[in-house]
Amino acid sequence: MNLIKDQNKYFISIDKDEYVNQSLLDVANNENLKSGWISGVGAIYDIEVGYFDVEKKDYVRKKFSGDYELLSISGNISIKEGDRFVHTHITFSDIEFNVFGGHLFDAKVAAAGEFLIDLCDFEVKRKYNENLGLHLWCINNE
Amino acid sequence: MNLIKDQNKYFISIDKDEYVNQSLLDVANNENLKSGWISGVGAIYDIEVGYFDVEKKDYVRKKFSGDYELLSISGNISIKEGDRFVHTHITFSDIEFNVFGGHLFDAKVAAAGEFLIDLCDFEVKRKYNENLGLHLWCINNE
Amino acid sequence: MNLIKDQNKYFISIDKDEYVNQSLLDVANNENLKSGWISGVGAIYDIEVGYFDVEKKDYVRKKFSGDYELLSISGNISIKEGDRFVHTHITFSDIEFNVFGGHLFDAKVAAAGEFLIDLCDFEVKRKYNENLGLHLWCINNE
Repeated sequence: MNLIKDQNKYFISIDKDEYVNQSLLDVANNENLKSGWISGVGAIYDIEVGYFDVEKKDYVRKKFSGDYELLSISGNISIKEGDRFVHTHITFSDIEFNVFGGHLFDAKVAAAGEFLIDLCDFEVKRKYNENLGLHLWCINNE
Repeated sequence: MNLIKDQNKYFISIDKDEYVNQSLLDVANNENLKSGWISGVGAIYDIEVGYFDVEKKDYVRKKFSGDYELLSISGNISIKEGDRFVHTHITFSDIEFNVFGGHLFDAKVAAAGEFLIDLCDFEVKRKYNENLGLHLWCINNE
Repeated sequence: MNLIKDQNKYFISIDKDEYVNQSLLDVANNENLKSGWISGVGAIYDIEVGYFDVEKKDYVRKKFSGDYELLSISGNISIKEGDRFVHTHITFSDIEFNVFGGHLFDAKVAAAGEFLIDLCDFEVKRKYNENLGLHLWCINNE
């Protein structure tokens, strides 16, 4: 994984066989990032995605085998239980151009892996919400 | 709905059962935003999306019941008929990780609702285009 | 195609029947952009997308006829073989709200075409990777 940056943005190249979310987390930790918004494109495999079942308060998980185009990744860097946390959702397409997607647990880069972290100059903490069973952004309106 | 901001960006947490587009519009109005680009992830329900039929110059509408992961929302804040206007398109996935999408009329947050408005220091007006039957961005190249 | 800009961002309105990637490349060239991240929404037709076959080191291509909502476009501006290069991936939906997607060769705008280039103050070069058969970002970690 390599990166190039200016004051506000990081372009991050994630190499073949490296994990997407883990690499983005490594950048956030190595660079002491406060927070930021994540975007990206590329090709991925070994994909594990989730669907949050609001009734059961837990994720339904599925692994996809084979290679897929990564069409979009959206998400952010925040602080969860004192540690930086990467939360992303993805869409990805197969050889017939059908699209699948979900909450991204993680996936490996299959070919190109081109990502953006757009920096924010504030820290966002997550707090566990018992009703929902999720760590939600904890932001006060000020 | 709560927000945290720096000079260039707003992170907006939209609470369960609040509308997505309406909440983003409320932020734009409350904060007197000129314009900005919208991104986001989360989980949604009560979704109404549209497909613009170019021949009929009107939207085909569909409501989706049940909960879905919000995989991406893309769009912007502009001025339409003198008022701020939120225009967004979304992709969302079901429990089998199939993906649907369209022009977003609006949807409610089902669990997490994490949104970004990336501010722009210019105003974009929309103007009705009779040929297309849509309010298009009215930008002069200068 | 028309644009409005501030120090960090371009909003680009691509007119009906104009190409998406080609218009974004024209902006990059006309404005001497170093690099930037691309987002957008609208409606498109004459779409040609690709799926990169890692084994064959080549794209499987498909053309879609008819009009589709452009739900997301993600990608970036870089330098490939000395020239500016636009690399984008898209998702798009049909009248039944099914979603398709892939690497975008190009597509024409069918109605609205609203795009963002978020500028970066660095240059990213691509270099041909023989193992993968692709021009990958060539970034050194510094």
